[in-house]
Amino acid sequence: MRRRGIRATAAVLEEELDYRKEELEFPADSGKKRGRKQKPKLRIIPLGGLEQIGMNITAYEYEDSLIIVDCGLAFPEDDMLGIDLVIPDVTYLKDNIDKVRGFVITHGHEDHIGALPYILKELNVPVYATKLTVGVIENKLKEHGLLKTTKRKVIKYGQSVNLGAFRVEFIRVNHSIADAAALAIFTPVGTIVHTGDFKVDYTPMFSDTIDLQRFAELGKKGVLALLADSTNVERPGFTMSERMVAKTFDTIFAENVNHRLIVATFASNVDRVQQIIYTAEKYDRKVVIEGRSMVNIMTTAEELGYINIPKNIMIDIEQIKNYPDEKLVLITTGSQGEAMAALSRMANSTHKKVSIMPGDAVILSSHPIPGNEKQVSKIINELTRKGAQVITQDTHVSGHACQEEIKLIYALTKPKYAIPLHGEYHHRVTHGRLAQSMGVEKENVFVLSSGDVLELDENSGAVVDRVVAQGIFVDGLGVGDVGNIVLRDRQHLSENGLLIVVLTLQKYTGEILAGPDIVSRGFVYVRENENLMDEAKVVVLDALDRCMAKNMTDWSKIKNVMKDSLSEYIWKKMKRNPMILPIIMEVDA
Amino acid sequence: MRRRGIRATAAVLEEELDYRKEELEFPADSGKKRGRKQKPKLRIIPLGGLEQIGMNITAYEYEDSLIIVDCGLAFPEDDMLGIDLVIPDVTYLKDNIDKVRGFVITHGHEDHIGALPYILKELNVPVYATKLTVGVIENKLKEHGLLKTTKRKVIKYGQSVNLGAFRVEFIRVNHSIADAAALAIFTPVGTIVHTGDFKVDYTPMFSDTIDLQRFAELGKKGVLALLADSTNVERPGFTMSERMVAKTFDTIFAENVNHRLIVATFASNVDRVQQIIYTAEKYDRKVVIEGRSMVNIMTTAEELGYINIPKNIMIDIEQIKNYPDEKLVLITTGSQGEAMAALSRMANSTHKKVSIMPGDAVILSSHPIPGNEKQVSKIINELTRKGAQVITQDTHVSGHACQEEIKLIYALTKPKYAIPLHGEYHHRVTHGRLAQSMGVEKENVFVLSSGDVLELDENSGAVVDRVVAQGIFVDGLGVGDVGNIVLRDRQHLSENGLLIVVLTLQKYTGEILAGPDIVSRGFVYVRENENLMDEAKVVVLDALDRCMAKNMTDWSKIKNVMKDSLSEYIWKKMKRNPMILPIIMEVDA
Repeated sequence: MRRRGIRATAAVLEEELDYRKEELEFPADSGKKRGRKQKPKLRIIPLGGLEQIGMNITAYEYEDSLIIVDCGLAFPEDDMLGIDLVIPDVTYLKDNIDKVRGFVITHGHEDHIGALPYILKELNVPVYATKLTVGVIENKLKEHGLLKTTKRKVIKYGQSVNLGAFRVEFIRVNHSIADAAALAIFTPVGTIVHTGDFKVDYTPMFSDTIDLQRFAELGKKGVLALLADSTNVERPGFTMSERMVAKTFDTIFAENVNHRLIVATFASNVDRVQQIIYTAEKYDRKVVIEGRSMVNIMTTAEELGYINIPKNIMIDIEQIKNYPDEKLVLITTGSQGEAMAALSRMANSTHKKVSIMPGDAVILSSHPIPGNEKQVSKIINELTRKGAQVITQDTHVSGHACQEEIKLIYALTKPKYAIPLHGEYHHRVTHGRLAQSMGVEKENVFVLSSGDVLELDENSGAVVDRVVAQGIFVDGLGVGDVGNIVLRDRQHLSENGLLIVVLTLQKYTGEILAGPDIVSRGFVYVRENENLMDEAKVVVLDALDRCMAKNMTDWSKIKNVMKDSLSEYIWKKMKRNPMILPIIMEVDA
Repeated sequence: MRRRGIRATAAVLEEELDYRKEELEFPADSGKKRGRKQKPKLRIIPLGGLEQIGMNITAYEYEDSLIIVDCGLAFPEDDMLGIDLVIPDVTYLKDNIDKVRGFVITHGHEDHIGALPYILKELNVPVYATKLTVGVIENKLKEHGLLKTTKRKVIKYGQSVNLGAFRVEFIRVNHSIADAAALAIFTPVGTIVHTGDFKVDYTPMFSDTIDLQRFAELGKKGVLALLADSTNVERPGFTMSERMVAKTFDTIFAENVNHRLIVATFASNVDRVQQIIYTAEKYDRKVVIEGRSMVNIMTTAEELGYINIPKNIMIDIEQIKNYPDEKLVLITTGSQGEAMAALSRMANSTHKKVSIMPGDAVILSSHPIPGNEKQVSKIINELTRKGAQVITQDTHVSGHACQEEIKLIYALTKPKYAIPLHGEYHHRVTHGRLAQSMGVEKENVFVLSSGDVLELDENSGAVVDRVVAQGIFVDGLGVGDVGNIVLRDRQHLSENGLLIVVLTLQKYTGEILAGPDIVSRGFVYVRENENLMDEAKVVVLDALDRCMAKNMTDWSKIKNVMKDSLSEYIWKKMKRNPMILPIIMEVDA
């Protein structure tokens, strides 16, 4: 296991960075059982990412020091109608802003960095990450106009940063984006290992294997707690090496020498794109990268030296007409069937530069993320209809560890406490059982909920409190202005449509000056249901008469009577429940 | 392969039923190449089930005879907001009502029988099916008050029914509901084999293996076309036998002798329920069946002798309190995470009789249907949260044939034409390739769209026409009154909410008598956005002033100006696009 330029880089580190001093500073058993005054405990607070999959953000707090690991966003669930993104609620961090030392980021995926630009606007603290991760974050900062105001620092594998009571070391791991790191967090009560997203790839394409020696070294010295990735904990065995995909690509390129090739994958999977480029080189094809997010990340990766692009292989999408189809590979976004991504636009003939043609071979180099199966299936149908051959077998490997890899990390680190992260509740419970099978005591496994405050020290751990940690909805430019009431209304409207009843009354006499008019949307075809609308008007007028007969004068009560009468009528007539909005206008004169 | 009571049953058959006379009547090559006057062709028209997965309905037409195979419903796609069901448009059948001889139904699943009660109201023709299938259909007819008016006839495996120019024979197949049949349709131009949904189970639990000999016999005599199930055509190998699940159940019962067991499966899977009951008997547990649809089907299955229930094993759900937990098995609906099904209600503590308790073992004896993955995952999380252990490994086998089984049917029947049914477009294309690999000529493979009219005879086949065949939406009691415009409005409302602008004007002067008032729903929290609403009013008034200044008098034009101005303002301000509804009331006096 090579470790590059330790001495050389050490010289240029700034004062807050140091290298491997944990032996001196915070031995994992410092102060243990010496009968001193009770030391404060470490507080670990997941602020998202547990109920809301994707929104990874975990706070570590010790006395006056607080660091935040990752700051991800979540994509909306099916019932979050019209919501663009979900970001974490950081009220707790804002309330403790004096303590906050910075964000420490494990890798550059949306579910770990996506909320940063939103949160940095409220919480302007430094960001620490590896080089490519910082590069990807900077793209986001640029878009949000935060590049000048945000302090950020590149940390190399093996280096550490001191942040108040904490020292955080970055450790190489394998994942589906380059430069991913696990963190060793040295705290006054012991060493925490926070894996981030990881897998064990003994034969990665372009970087080294996860630094298993360092995990072992930390374990040997004593690890208090392991916070590890649970995504694939229900899959037995080992995740396959990225090299497996290389073989598949070679076969596909060899079998399709007469066809245009289109490969869709995750925008951030630099290694995968690198593989495709190398295979294209071998088979003498030109490469086009299409899709804004992929172009952005690949540009950053190239600038920072994370991708190796042979001379004259890349062409612009405008140039594809100058090459025969069989001499082209298009690498594109949209492997999850996202409606606005490049592949969908090609499949639906709404892409300006590329249309799918009979004979094209389209490779989906990804698995559907749970919940996306249907839309991926739809795009496969569309591509097939256009005459393309769609290839999905052995074209992807996961970036997350399976059972045996997770066990390996437990075997190396031998933590006292296990805190499963990154996965649905049932994944984390399964992870908890796996931790027990690896020797962690049952009472030392903590399957937390977002907002739980876990207090830990060498002797014991317990959830002692709960802080606000729900998701905040982003809709257009609005952050947090759409909440549950608005969503409930959207749900109601989406299922049943609405009926508006509008009336103009003389203020003092209650005489009807205009209306009732009934306007509907999303309910029924009005033209074919004119009778219904006429009858509805009669129902409203009857309701109004009853109110007048009772000398009711409170408009809100009268509106309720109208609403209830109309609602009952519609339900009886057609077993439907549209939203009914009575509007009464008063004319004064 | 036993075949029961051929002679005995033949005696009691009615005049329109006969047994194995195809040799005399419609040899597959009758009239072939004899230089007679051109014989009419057979028309095959899938009226659903291709774009709209689930809505299986295929018409076979020859001169003045028309039969319909299956009459399924589809469950709504994600973008069919508020829709309960989708049923086929049978305009073509109504236009040809004089020809229609009846429905021939392959098996009792919703995607093959669910639309019958809706369609029979418009098209009152006889229904032919096997015994259990008729039983399940009768439950539906009862609910819709159609039991007295619908003619139905039970057909046994091996029997045929004459329907005009057609004779239809029912052939035993294996599937995930008992009494499933393939059809041999003897027509003047040749024999058609229509498999329905099938698998090959050499060791079924409670009935015989699919009648492979009969498929072979038909093939030997000559099969013109094979219309076969494509569901699992992309899976290599063979579908496992139902007996595999029996082993898993035995293991789970043995390992959980101290826990209550809850098994969720498809309501119609009689064989699966039978297995669970036998395993319960072995392990001395009482059985409760819970969930309305499952109770209905099991009652029918018991009445008709399709399930064998040992004495004293069944108890009512009211009695579970009288037995210790470890002596109970609950068999329930809801294995797809359906919100209203029994399992969901148990998991969410809204079930009146059963709550999930720590220690419960919950077995999901089904796979998620594509599109349901997320909601299944949600229910697993809920069950896990309540302390249950959720078991999903090896607890289900598919009811559909994989590649090797489909190939087997091709090898036995050796059809001239292949018309893949039952699957998404990409499945049917894959099926077409498989048919070619089994010797069907490329030009004799027809991957049809719903509504395509395929004309066939011994010499050639071609799609010659297209009839109306889209889905009709059922919403509450309304059938077909919700169409694309209504759905588009629901979509718009669901994503963005709405803003209503209402104004009362003096009819002749245009003077504002009341308003503008702005009412919003599903847009933003109004209380926190009062400024926005005030500014919106100003925008509307400005727009109105501009109209007045131009002496515009057409209210619809004025409303458009108001709408556009407000829309532009909201987009600029918050990058959102609510539905905007301007309503102008006129006062005459």
